Amino acid sequence: MAAKQPVAIVFDTFGSVVDWRTSLITDLTAYGASRGITADWPALVDAWRAAYHPSMDRVRHGQQPWTKLDGLHRESLDRLVAGFGIKDLTEDDLVHINLGWHRLKPWPDAVPGLTRLKSRFIIGPLSNGNVSLLLNMAKFAGIPWDMIFGSDLFGHFKPDPETYLGVGKLLDLRPDQVMMAAAHNGDLAAARSCGLLTAFFPRPSEYGPLQKRDYQADQDWDIVATDIQDMASQLGV
Amino acid sequence: MAAKQPVAIVFDTFGSVVDWRTSLITDLTAYGASRGITADWPALVDAWRAAYHPSMDRVRHGQQPWTKLDGLHRESLDRLVAGFGIKDLTEDDLVHINLGWHRLKPWPDAVPGLTRLKSRFIIGPLSNGNVSLLLNMAKFAGIPWDMIFGSDLFGHFKPDPETYLGVGKLLDLRPDQVMMAAAHNGDLAAARSCGLLTAFFPRPSEYGPLQKRDYQADQDWDIVATDIQDMASQLGV
Repeated sequence: MAAKQPVAIVFDTFGSVVDWRTSLITDLTAYGASRGITADWPALVDAWRAAYHPSMDRVRHGQQPWTKLDGLHRESLDRLVAGFGIKDLTEDDLVHINLGWHRLKPWPDAVPGLTRLKSRFIIGPLSNGNVSLLLNMAKFAGIPWDMIFGSDLFGHFKPDPETYLGVGKLLDLRPDQVMMAAAHNGDLAAARSCGLLTAFFPRPSEYGPLQKRDYQADQDWDIVATDIQDMASQLGV
Repeated sequence: MAAKQPVAIVFDTFGSVVDWRTSLITDLTAYGASRGITADWPALVDAWRAAYHPSMDRVRHGQQPWTKLDGLHRESLDRLVAGFGIKDLTEDDLVHINLGWHRLKPWPDAVPGLTRLKSRFIIGPLSNGNVSLLLNMAKFAGIPWDMIFGSDLFGHFKPDPETYLGVGKLLDLRPDQVMMAAAHNGDLAAARSCGLLTAFFPRPSEYGPLQKRDYQADQDWDIVATDIQDMASQLGV
């Protein structure tokens, strides 16, 4: 059993718990076909995700007021649809496509691993997604969270410390009683700088052919696992 | 099936989902016996609950800054322990007793009824309890909430409208897509004035011999049920 046992474990979600790229490409390709709209959906998905960090950075650096991730996704989508020259999308289509982020599918180990962890620990997403996005995703995918730590609870996106420290404030726990789990070394570095415990597992196909980093642990994280099932085993559940 | 179907259903917790009075009397009586401390624990529990609304009203009316319910409970407990002349309680004892509100047991219909409702609706507590209290209670009692709407998310106690309206803001739902469910007519009246749907079920033994009201519905609530199982049946799940 790992030496340091947390009370609560919070998970990065996009990429760490759910496979956003495959899910969105599959979802949008099928939707485009059903609507008779032709587009390079995989390229749109990759460009959409590439707009993710810059859009949050505009909020984090004060160039844009607080906006839920659903709103940032929609702003990026509108710009990309125009840039890709995709025609004939109605407002209903755009709403449906934007809510594709609420319909992401978990990696195969995620739900069984989280179910094991839930038996001993408080578990929740600590994601840049808003509460409604993360909750709809949980209902859609059967993810058994105890609590949804959406970024709108804190009015901050990761890696702002208000997010990592906000979990302990809501749960009345010290930072070192909370473990951040993610497939992204950068997320864990920010969490560790706030005093949280850390757990890493790789998702080497998250970005498909565009993956450039996070094939392995960059630091001596408290847990380094192969996936969430292995993480549960290392925590003794 | 009931005509008006919500997307999310939020539940009053103390008295509506959990039997605070029997739980606390049982818990404190056993704890006192194990510590060799004699007291009129049932009277302490009733006095503690009687201090609940006045303590929140001090916050709601600006006489005291925002304080989590755990903190208000502790302030009331300290005053009552002195008033009742209970001796020999250590700080650890007082912490344990105060966390008795995290160890409340559900009414027998609550967990099976909520489990049914969860299959179709988003469910959560909308309680004056703080997130940590409600989450620890859920873990202790096996209550399958999707999300914990603690009063500390809003910085307000019911019946302030920020609580009832705050649920829809977090879930991106209109007020009439959210149903408030409670054993207390006053809670439902406040929710209805904010535009929420309403569901009532009585808990005629909540206050034991001190019960004075809420034996039946005072208004034509959208659902009037005998308990949460019946409420699920009326909603067609």
